[in-house]
Amino acid sequence: MKNLKKLTLLSILICLTFPIFAQKAQWIWYPGDFDIYMGNVMQNRRTERGSFFPVFWKMDSHYVLVDFHKEFNLPAAEEVKLFVEGTYNVKIDGKAISGFPKSITIPAGKHKLSLKVYSTAQVPAIFVQGKTVVSDETWLATFEDKEWIDASGKTSDKSGTTFVNAGSWNMTDPLSLPSKFKLPTKPIIAVKTEKINKGFVTDFGKETFGFIKIHGLKGKGKLNIYYGESKEEALSVSHCETLDLLELDLASKTDSVMELSKAFRYVNIQPEGSVSLDSISMLYEYSPVAQRGSFKSSDAELNKIYEVSKYTFELNTREFFIDGIKRDRWIWSGDAYQSYLMNYYSIYDAPTVKRTLWAQRGKDPVTAHINTIMDYSFYWFLGIYDYYQYSGDQKFVQDIYPRMKSLMTYIDGRKNKNGLLEWMPGDWIFIDWADKLSKDGEVSFEQLLYCRSLETMALCAKLANDEASAAIYSKQAAELKSKIFELYWNKEKSALVHSRIDGKQTDNVTRYANMFGIFFDYFTPEQKLAVKQNVLLNDKVAKITTPYMRFYELEALCAMGEQPYVLKEMKSYWGGMLKLGATSFWEEYNPEKKGDEHLAMYGRPFGKSLCHAWGASPIYLLGKYYLGVKPTSSAYQTYLVEPNLGGLEWMEGTVPTNNGEIALSVSKKEIKVKAAEGIGTLRFKSAVKPSVKGAVIKEVAKGLYEMTIQKGVEYVVKYQG
Amino acid sequence: MKNLKKLTLLSILICLTFPIFAQKAQWIWYPGDFDIYMGNVMQNRRTERGSFFPVFWKMDSHYVLVDFHKEFNLPAAEEVKLFVEGTYNVKIDGKAISGFPKSITIPAGKHKLSLKVYSTAQVPAIFVQGKTVVSDETWLATFEDKEWIDASGKTSDKSGTTFVNAGSWNMTDPLSLPSKFKLPTKPIIAVKTEKINKGFVTDFGKETFGFIKIHGLKGKGKLNIYYGESKEEALSVSHCETLDLLELDLASKTDSVMELSKAFRYVNIQPEGSVSLDSISMLYEYSPVAQRGSFKSSDAELNKIYEVSKYTFELNTREFFIDGIKRDRWIWSGDAYQSYLMNYYSIYDAPTVKRTLWAQRGKDPVTAHINTIMDYSFYWFLGIYDYYQYSGDQKFVQDIYPRMKSLMTYIDGRKNKNGLLEWMPGDWIFIDWADKLSKDGEVSFEQLLYCRSLETMALCAKLANDEASAAIYSKQAAELKSKIFELYWNKEKSALVHSRIDGKQTDNVTRYANMFGIFFDYFTPEQKLAVKQNVLLNDKVAKITTPYMRFYELEALCAMGEQPYVLKEMKSYWGGMLKLGATSFWEEYNPEKKGDEHLAMYGRPFGKSLCHAWGASPIYLLGKYYLGVKPTSSAYQTYLVEPNLGGLEWMEGTVPTNNGEIALSVSKKEIKVKAAEGIGTLRFKSAVKPSVKGAVIKEVAKGLYEMTIQKGVEYVVKYQG
Repeated sequence: MKNLKKLTLLSILICLTFPIFAQKAQWIWYPGDFDIYMGNVMQNRRTERGSFFPVFWKMDSHYVLVDFHKEFNLPAAEEVKLFVEGTYNVKIDGKAISGFPKSITIPAGKHKLSLKVYSTAQVPAIFVQGKTVVSDETWLATFEDKEWIDASGKTSDKSGTTFVNAGSWNMTDPLSLPSKFKLPTKPIIAVKTEKINKGFVTDFGKETFGFIKIHGLKGKGKLNIYYGESKEEALSVSHCETLDLLELDLASKTDSVMELSKAFRYVNIQPEGSVSLDSISMLYEYSPVAQRGSFKSSDAELNKIYEVSKYTFELNTREFFIDGIKRDRWIWSGDAYQSYLMNYYSIYDAPTVKRTLWAQRGKDPVTAHINTIMDYSFYWFLGIYDYYQYSGDQKFVQDIYPRMKSLMTYIDGRKNKNGLLEWMPGDWIFIDWADKLSKDGEVSFEQLLYCRSLETMALCAKLANDEASAAIYSKQAAELKSKIFELYWNKEKSALVHSRIDGKQTDNVTRYANMFGIFFDYFTPEQKLAVKQNVLLNDKVAKITTPYMRFYELEALCAMGEQPYVLKEMKSYWGGMLKLGATSFWEEYNPEKKGDEHLAMYGRPFGKSLCHAWGASPIYLLGKYYLGVKPTSSAYQTYLVEPNLGGLEWMEGTVPTNNGEIALSVSKKEIKVKAAEGIGTLRFKSAVKPSVKGAVIKEVAKGLYEMTIQKGVEYVVKYQG
Repeated sequence: MKNLKKLTLLSILICLTFPIFAQKAQWIWYPGDFDIYMGNVMQNRRTERGSFFPVFWKMDSHYVLVDFHKEFNLPAAEEVKLFVEGTYNVKIDGKAISGFPKSITIPAGKHKLSLKVYSTAQVPAIFVQGKTVVSDETWLATFEDKEWIDASGKTSDKSGTTFVNAGSWNMTDPLSLPSKFKLPTKPIIAVKTEKINKGFVTDFGKETFGFIKIHGLKGKGKLNIYYGESKEEALSVSHCETLDLLELDLASKTDSVMELSKAFRYVNIQPEGSVSLDSISMLYEYSPVAQRGSFKSSDAELNKIYEVSKYTFELNTREFFIDGIKRDRWIWSGDAYQSYLMNYYSIYDAPTVKRTLWAQRGKDPVTAHINTIMDYSFYWFLGIYDYYQYSGDQKFVQDIYPRMKSLMTYIDGRKNKNGLLEWMPGDWIFIDWADKLSKDGEVSFEQLLYCRSLETMALCAKLANDEASAAIYSKQAAELKSKIFELYWNKEKSALVHSRIDGKQTDNVTRYANMFGIFFDYFTPEQKLAVKQNVLLNDKVAKITTPYMRFYELEALCAMGEQPYVLKEMKSYWGGMLKLGATSFWEEYNPEKKGDEHLAMYGRPFGKSLCHAWGASPIYLLGKYYLGVKPTSSAYQTYLVEPNLGGLEWMEGTVPTNNGEIALSVSKKEIKVKAAEGIGTLRFKSAVKPSVKGAVIKEVAKGLYEMTIQKGVEYVVKYQG
């Protein structure tokens, strides 16, 4: 993972500020603690019409007392500087040093350095910087060291303490305290301002996020700021979703920056009393991650869809992968799961994935599903193995595995007498925002996700060296899988039915379980084809109106080679939003709605988020199913490149990996490919016998060819696509 | 419990500061949260020779996001003031009010008022003050309200939320924030000062606790302050347990109070460089509880023992019942358990009991025994039912019952194949500080405490209306009890043996299980007598050298009517400490030690605490077994008074109850008794037929008499004792 981290822009920036010891010491904490703490900070910034609007699930917090230690073998005595967040002690070989030393000298030889830190308000964290003695993830941490002594002063020699490797996040500046962490901002000026009533409406030209800065503010009275993702919202002082109502008494002109960040394109500023101001601008707040994935094609509309997707994703990539920048600004597991996948084809930022997974899970005991939603618990499991597959970060799987186990134990305790999961008080069965979608009884979609989660547990248990559990999870998954087909597969309908109520199949067929069954590879080839025809391509089955589930619907079709069809769907659906003036993609888009109907949701005229992470899925679809790049073993040690133009004249792009990119340029006559990592397989169809320099092309089936891609070599394949 | 709370001096003091709404609104929080938070604050004040010295078990913290609500039916609209610790929103009937209102108006009629509060650094807490709308323990609280909405904005109607009654602690001043809570102090001047080296040693006349205040401090250099419970300790700059090392640069004379409280009688002040000072005094820090129990007798030495016990207990009664004021200043369950019992015969302060029980237990998940000690988990259970028995506070039992259950589940998971508990990694089997005390195998003492804890669980399950679990715990307890006698009772020795190793009884007999078996009433009358002779009164069985286990040893003897013997033991043991100059009672006292040996422990010359709560047990023994007062049903609804002079000429005293005291004056010829509560039974022996006005005396056995004590009536019984 070090290599993956190295490549983020943030880490490069941070390193520059502390160049002498760059890449060495880091702030460390108990794994997951900073993530949970920061998750609270992030999620508690939401307001709705001026009211604080926190989450409705349990928020956990960091361990308040943490012991860190590491053993060192020093060739010479070494001076070590200590930076600590919290009250602390320092011990060398178990012997405490008086006071709160900021610098100590460790003698030559083998020594154990320990710091024990207490802090309620912040995450207990340390930064240790010597020549060779540095804090990093090789340190061990515990929240209970159980080091009692007997009456003679002898320390217990029968320790039952569990030590884990410390957590970190490339915070390499000792003077930048984790508790003070803030994303960077940059000033942006407005595009247009228009007088309205006593004030004005300012247009920033496109959806954006940050802090409004007011220039030349003066006078006594009120200043009301109404934010809008649409102009209609900003103008609706009674129904806009976010606002700032200020009471002022300023004798001389001053500039003022709002305390809380907001999402907006339009800002309606209305002064009252003698309040006046010159203008407003904004501080755009962003996560400084590198843009590494790219896509360009012969289709200008598709290119625009890709660019707006990337911008939508950029806006929603903050301290965490959140759902939407206006609302909810929370860490929803189902939403974030899609962001992880988009991430692997764009910014490829490991820390944000890990932080988001930690923050979602929180701490034991488990008292509810993640975000209270059953499906969202399952996406959480899936996200962890996906992350491993793309990054190869086994340490993270090991770190988080105990919390995977306890969540799975919670779920196991909620099975009904048939061994299936159905609604219990406190469980939200979400699936999707869709009218008249039944959540009653044993919903097939939930069982499918449960089964996939058990398979994931088996894989992760192996990575965490828990072979015994791996076997149990594998067995449970296999049993559940056969039960799913026994109970839900309807031969007449040639599809999985939506649910069982009172032990009987309902008559209802929905897309959800069926489309997941395809890319989970749960169907036989015959079932797959039947499902495609009877469900996915069947207009009589209720349509999906959120980009959220369109993500999976289109993925399922791509997985079956329907790229030309999906291309048209993308152009129609995402292109449809663009035609309505979208500058970022929405939470929900139903082409059948008209005018202001597109802005409403949850019974509120501007309730809908117009910038929702799950709107950005073309990033993933284009990278994985058009450029056709995906790992076949962890961290792209081996991978597949299976380009599919899907009707395009040409396309080109890059897919990021740990140590560089896989770059691809594809026309109907030529495929250029070059990769910085692993051993790839290029697979393509050709109507003629293809040719390439420096590699051997094999025909693996009629008209289907494969060749091996070696690291660092550019191949130019001539073919006819 | 309200009545019990009313009677503490603290609540009276607090009420005076906010007289208009006295007894109404209180600061409230999620139950246990303030206690856990304050427990962290308290326990993280320990230092050892200037180093921060925190606990070695898991410290939990408060829920960071808590929702509070209550429904009101108002005859008229009402203005309500809101005080909140944390970021918050306010909702009336689920509709949020903009901003952070400090005052709201609730319309007439039935309305639900909710506040949702987020805070990491402090405990989320609210204080709501209207005419009738006030915050108190009738409010409901939850850390996960699970109030999601569907796409139409409709709130979930299938709530799985667990609401519990809020917690509080008579904090009735809205301007005194829970997070700023501090015990009061009062200034105390020194008794004597003696020049030593460049500085001086000050004697405060007796063991004390608080903050040193330095008067007229000036100059540049160091000021080193060495604290001593003994003069030897204060003079030992290299080995005193606590110290303050200050770096100063003061141009003009100033007074300065030390930041951290310390325990001491002697303070050795040594300036360096040009530093000078005029004198020192101290701020004595104390818990403002009322002294309600009392005891006086014809024996001056015993009276002195009682007074020093009370002072020892006063010093160790702080935010919580701690072990010792110099060391560890932590909340140890075994130590606190004895303090609870002393408390019922002295200050009778319910809040300190509850806070201590909450703080010990912390939160789920359980990852270790309480304080990591197996026996200490068991004392925690026992303390809860005792508290109910003395106070009648069923709400508290219901509040804490879920955490009792989860701790018992943890313990249940640690049984060995024989269904017994033995050491596992991370478990500390403490029992007592004693040389060569084996902790190996299945120790009988632990099984006895486990059995008593299961009985306690059964009783508390009933109080929490969990009849199903009550039946299970009862059954487990009965099975374990018969197993204990089957496996540990040795007929030849007529005693319980200490342990089993590899399935076989060891040859060892110790006092622990045997003395507990007596006051747990686990023995037959024959067994009891045999144990008394063969173990308790047998000098060949290893002696106990801590007041901690002497507490139980003497209790067992008292329970068998050995008051004359115990009186001699008390005079010899506690009197022995007084003869050595003790001004408070010690952590350990072995009469066979000499001189400075009495100060040493844990391999350190001044390691021993000279003011340890468990040293104060005469308070309990004299109240319960000499005055002979104890409840026979909860909250002294019924109780027994069974005075036993134990060789004294006369004794008099009071035992506190919820609504007053039980006052007693006993000579060999007369018993005066008057009680403010319940229906009592006076039981006494007399050589002649006794007489009394206003009651009927019955002879219940040869020479044993009983009469009923009615509330508020003073009885004077003539008898011959």
